[in-house]
Amino acid sequence: MKAVLIQNGSVRFAETEDPALGDEQLLVKVAGAGLNAADLMQAAGNYPPPPGIREDIPGLEFSGTVIAQGTSVPRNLVGKRVMGVLGGAAQAELVAVHHSSAIVIPEGLDLVEAGGVPEAYITAYDALFIQAGLSIGERVLVRGASGGVGSAAVAMAVLAGAETLGTSRTEEGRAYIEGLGAKAIDPDEVLGNGPFDVVLELIGGMQFHSCLSELRSRGRIVVIGVGQGSRVELDLRLLMMKRAIVRASTLRPRSQGEKGEIARQFSERMVPHLASGALKPNLQRAYPAADAPGAYADFASISKQGKLVLAF
Amino acid sequence: MKAVLIQNGSVRFAETEDPALGDEQLLVKVAGAGLNAADLMQAAGNYPPPPGIREDIPGLEFSGTVIAQGTSVPRNLVGKRVMGVLGGAAQAELVAVHHSSAIVIPEGLDLVEAGGVPEAYITAYDALFIQAGLSIGERVLVRGASGGVGSAAVAMAVLAGAETLGTSRTEEGRAYIEGLGAKAIDPDEVLGNGPFDVVLELIGGMQFHSCLSELRSRGRIVVIGVGQGSRVELDLRLLMMKRAIVRASTLRPRSQGEKGEIARQFSERMVPHLASGALKPNLQRAYPAADAPGAYADFASISKQGKLVLAF
Repeated sequence: MKAVLIQNGSVRFAETEDPALGDEQLLVKVAGAGLNAADLMQAAGNYPPPPGIREDIPGLEFSGTVIAQGTSVPRNLVGKRVMGVLGGAAQAELVAVHHSSAIVIPEGLDLVEAGGVPEAYITAYDALFIQAGLSIGERVLVRGASGGVGSAAVAMAVLAGAETLGTSRTEEGRAYIEGLGAKAIDPDEVLGNGPFDVVLELIGGMQFHSCLSELRSRGRIVVIGVGQGSRVELDLRLLMMKRAIVRASTLRPRSQGEKGEIARQFSERMVPHLASGALKPNLQRAYPAADAPGAYADFASISKQGKLVLAF
Repeated sequence: MKAVLIQNGSVRFAETEDPALGDEQLLVKVAGAGLNAADLMQAAGNYPPPPGIREDIPGLEFSGTVIAQGTSVPRNLVGKRVMGVLGGAAQAELVAVHHSSAIVIPEGLDLVEAGGVPEAYITAYDALFIQAGLSIGERVLVRGASGGVGSAAVAMAVLAGAETLGTSRTEEGRAYIEGLGAKAIDPDEVLGNGPFDVVLELIGGMQFHSCLSELRSRGRIVVIGVGQGSRVELDLRLLMMKRAIVRASTLRPRSQGEKGEIARQFSERMVPHLASGALKPNLQRAYPAADAPGAYADFASISKQGKLVLAF
């Protein structure tokens, strides 16, 4: 097969060996595979995949068609259109994935566009609903709202009946956020735009104290990205007075059991909204897989409004 | 009645007016009232009580005998021995307290000693079991373990089947912690004594990063005291990698409904252990209420091994 390959820090699209198919796995002919910040970190050598996963093929999500399955897979999925999150090596013509991670793609969803759905939507779903416990009528701020995860979070928060604000540094980004049904603000305008019940932190850096200041009593800050700075000052007394929670996570190192459970919950609760059109794949641009170097360069430089996806 | 009165930052025991009895309240002839750090802060003008509570009488907990009750109290409690937490004004010969905050004291528990039980035990119970979700077999570190809340936390964590460590700066403090069934360490020895599933932070200050470093994946840090420093550096990336939670709270500003619910849960789950002797009032010393100035001076200066209680 051909795959996106990392070699000495650069990215190319080239021939490599096919993946082996495990007993509990599906072999998927990939149609689309979204780009994520973790791919760029992995290409730079800063974010190795979990043990047992090829280090030289990036990619955390895929869409495609099942062409074979292992002997222990409990239901027949051959021929089905599926999407999912995996620990790495998704940006390839073929992926082998545990059957519990495969989410059946509803009719009407474009197969390539679906390749940009799972990582962003599942990450945002887990952060907003499982970790922060976001509820109808609450006020939520998404810090870094125009990218893949951010725009998925905004769309789901709006759908859940939360009063939703999102930050973007650019005018196009803010227009995109408003198009999703939220109020858009500049990242420096956090102070004065609270109070918030939930802050979803995707960028990190200097506004952390402002977010805590603007938090409502019993508010929750969930951190899932820190690209603009990891070390912040935390005022524990203010945290006490607000009875607040700061929590953080990544999806990637979790056990297969836990990933499967999240995929199941996402399938039941969110895929119907993708099927109805209430939630849409937040595709910004699709690139032929052979143009992976260009897609990676764009990811690092352009103003983000949704997902960049490689088409295979 | 006589009460401990704050005047111009100093503490004395003097005559003042009796409390009024509300429809949903009990009037309690106080036997014991424990001292807490909040009382010293309040005496220094730094921790005013919630609205509607006298500012010039400190005290967050009491034990005593019900001598009258309001017309809307749903069960007859007159003559019962009760203890409880309230928003302030507990260090007095009489207190008026919402009936849902009153916990019936089991037989065999000394009435004066019981006056040092509720604030420490309920605060520690809420932090360890409701907020941190401490479970059997987990490893827990109590930072500041020889004081009232700390020693209550250690005793309950041991009883819950957790592997328990506690810090104290003094040798006597560490001996006291070991007597409760835990391992005692110096506060500077956090590094290397992990990993911990739960850290209960009672003192704040510089060891926060060490606590996070020593936290196990999915660990929880619960902050309920910051006397030695409120502003700490938090490494959000490390928090993500550990999938950790930092949360904080105070009991005092909570609604009566919430306080009543915690008292009910504490009555059901912990009072039987106080009745059986598996948990003991952690009394360090009782003082006649007239010696309140001496008790306050001791609270600020001595090596803490449990509770200081005023006897009325």
